[in-house]
Amino acid sequence: MTNVGDEGLGLIDEAECLVLLASQSVGRVAVSVGAVPAVFPVNFGVLDNTIVFRTAAGTKLDVATRNSVIAFEVDKIDPVYHEGWSVLVVGMAEELTDPATLQRALDLPLAPWAPGSRDHVVCVRPELVSGRRIVHRAVPEAAAS
Amino acid sequence: MTNVGDEGLGLIDEAECLVLLASQSVGRVAVSVGAVPAVFPVNFGVLDNTIVFRTAAGTKLDVATRNSVIAFEVDKIDPVYHEGWSVLVVGMAEELTDPATLQRALDLPLAPWAPGSRDHVVCVRPELVSGRRIVHRAVPEAAAS
Repeated sequence: MTNVGDEGLGLIDEAECLVLLASQSVGRVAVSVGAVPAVFPVNFGVLDNTIVFRTAAGTKLDVATRNSVIAFEVDKIDPVYHEGWSVLVVGMAEELTDPATLQRALDLPLAPWAPGSRDHVVCVRPELVSGRRIVHRAVPEAAAS
Repeated sequence: MTNVGDEGLGLIDEAECLVLLASQSVGRVAVSVGAVPAVFPVNFGVLDNTIVFRTAAGTKLDVATRNSVIAFEVDKIDPVYHEGWSVLVVGMAEELTDPATLQRALDLPLAPWAPGSRDHVVCVRPELVSGRRIVHRAVPEAAAS
């Protein structure tokens, strides 16, 4: 894994990125649906250093995460002051099929979203990990109102 | 603009998507950095039905949003029950250069993030708008603890 960095300032090292990642339960998956980019929020867990989340068979997210390189982003941002952090992981998404590992994934608190069956568990092994602190230079009065 | 829909259930119509979008101030931009997907949270505003946000000249986000089709996602998700909504916009990102419009954009409460100059204002005119309610079928006990 490589820390790809960002703007040159406010970077978070990979070890801390992984700790921050594991502290949250909702992330955003960025994929291409056809040639069109899309972002889907998912409830996720961390298992054996991989990110796991559930998808409903046949949905756009399910199709787009079959053996594809995806971006997975997790952040925690103060809604008023807009300070916080963001961690970005890039890796290959694959369906988890090993029965023992699958059972362990299903034991995680991966709340299934949306009506319909949540048939697949997708795992993403981080290949690129980067993180940055989000700070602002000034809070406009209107932003704090 | 076209409502591209999602899973066939829980869809939000375009008019409501735009109202929900304007109710928030933090969104996530999905772009390609080279051939690698990436997601960046941004502080944004809505001006003349376009999404506007600030970027620092020369940063990855700045470069990746020059005349590129991007995905922009906004959501509001209950951190415990994981219910809420997600709105996805796809459109061409362009730098805002018209002086009068630029001044109006800079008057929005677009808190600049990260150290350094925030030199550019990027605007995205929605071409595809879709939204969905996020519901879950059951809350595992561990998720609510």
